[in-house]
Amino acid sequence: MSHIKLNNEKALVVFSGGQDSTTCLFWAQKHYQEVEAVFFHYGQRHHIEYESAKKIASMNNIKLHELHLDTFKELGGNSLLDHNESISEESDSGLPNTFVPGRNLIFLTYAAALSWKIKAKHLVTGVCQTDFSGYPDCRQDTIEALEKAIQLGIDCPFEIHTPLMYLTKAETVKLAQSTGGLSAQAYSHTCYEGAVPPCGKCPSCLLRSKGFKEAGIEDPLVLRTQVF
Amino acid sequence: MSHIKLNNEKALVVFSGGQDSTTCLFWAQKHYQEVEAVFFHYGQRHHIEYESAKKIASMNNIKLHELHLDTFKELGGNSLLDHNESISEESDSGLPNTFVPGRNLIFLTYAAALSWKIKAKHLVTGVCQTDFSGYPDCRQDTIEALEKAIQLGIDCPFEIHTPLMYLTKAETVKLAQSTGGLSAQAYSHTCYEGAVPPCGKCPSCLLRSKGFKEAGIEDPLVLRTQVF
Repeated sequence: MSHIKLNNEKALVVFSGGQDSTTCLFWAQKHYQEVEAVFFHYGQRHHIEYESAKKIASMNNIKLHELHLDTFKELGGNSLLDHNESISEESDSGLPNTFVPGRNLIFLTYAAALSWKIKAKHLVTGVCQTDFSGYPDCRQDTIEALEKAIQLGIDCPFEIHTPLMYLTKAETVKLAQSTGGLSAQAYSHTCYEGAVPPCGKCPSCLLRSKGFKEAGIEDPLVLRTQVF
Repeated sequence: MSHIKLNNEKALVVFSGGQDSTTCLFWAQKHYQEVEAVFFHYGQRHHIEYESAKKIASMNNIKLHELHLDTFKELGGNSLLDHNESISEESDSGLPNTFVPGRNLIFLTYAAALSWKIKAKHLVTGVCQTDFSGYPDCRQDTIEALEKAIQLGIDCPFEIHTPLMYLTKAETVKLAQSTGGLSAQAYSHTCYEGAVPPCGKCPSCLLRSKGFKEAGIEDPLVLRTQVF
């Protein structure tokens, strides 16, 4: 029904400025001629996420789209958005209290709407089910169901790519290296506390640190920010 | 993984204050003990949609949630949101130029996130593929794919109900009557021009008028607003 012709050599990366989506940016550049990125402002705790995304995109000459999603704040009730609530591993629901129901579904659907506009056939997201984060919308079966819903709902043959889905953090570090994206990791953020240098103690920092250690590679972010 | 227990007797209706979703509200009240509704502010042309939704919800003692979605405006490029563009049947893409890519996917995903919060198992939407509106995200196969994506992505057995999917407008009018929702139609809006009394000439007014005529029922909105 839709006469829009998607560009098979164009990809849009859902980009948070974090370690995983930064890796995806370079993976996408290896695979597609044209790569753009989209950053979602959705009420994050820390401005550093946006600063990281802008810095990495501009250093690599990647067009960065920005979309504002205030709806999650209205829905309320999770520690990533409620700046007064502390972050813990698990909430009453059995999910981490950083869980925003349907967050990745929303991100990817808006990304698809934007892809429709810029005619990019490929959507790339850094979701990963091996890091045991407990987010059901990061799993492959969810992504496949959503891909079908988006294809039918926008009537375009979008493809959602999840290059990190089954990788360990160490393998993600190695993928960043093999796609030329290691040095950009000096500007990617990870710390839940938004600290620079990173706190090194939150679950997110620990996961990143373990990944680099297992990969036998020094973290460019640590090198850049360490205090001598 | 999620320990949230959904209430099998509770439904959330995606509610625009229009003819179809007003009918759904009464359908839901016939089927479930508890019914709530959600209205999306997404940059509609006319304030009358919101006024209709508030009026109908309050007259029927239904809790009305409100969520604001400014993201569609940022995405831009369609006549329902761009107040300077005129409405026509078809745009360059072969879709009506009222097409917002993925709009219903987004509405239903946010509705599911809200359902998770209020523990409603059932989502009700007035989408309909028989009115030939040309929106691919109103079709049953899209809704079924999205239901699966939502179930997996939020890890809850939500059910999406589309009571109007295969009904003609005349059948929708009769459903409104048989569920006790006919008089509420006096306050539902339809007109693309947002006019009161309705313009009677836009595609939306014509479709409504044809439906009531074929059902052999006088439109309570016409009765309420006609000028003597």
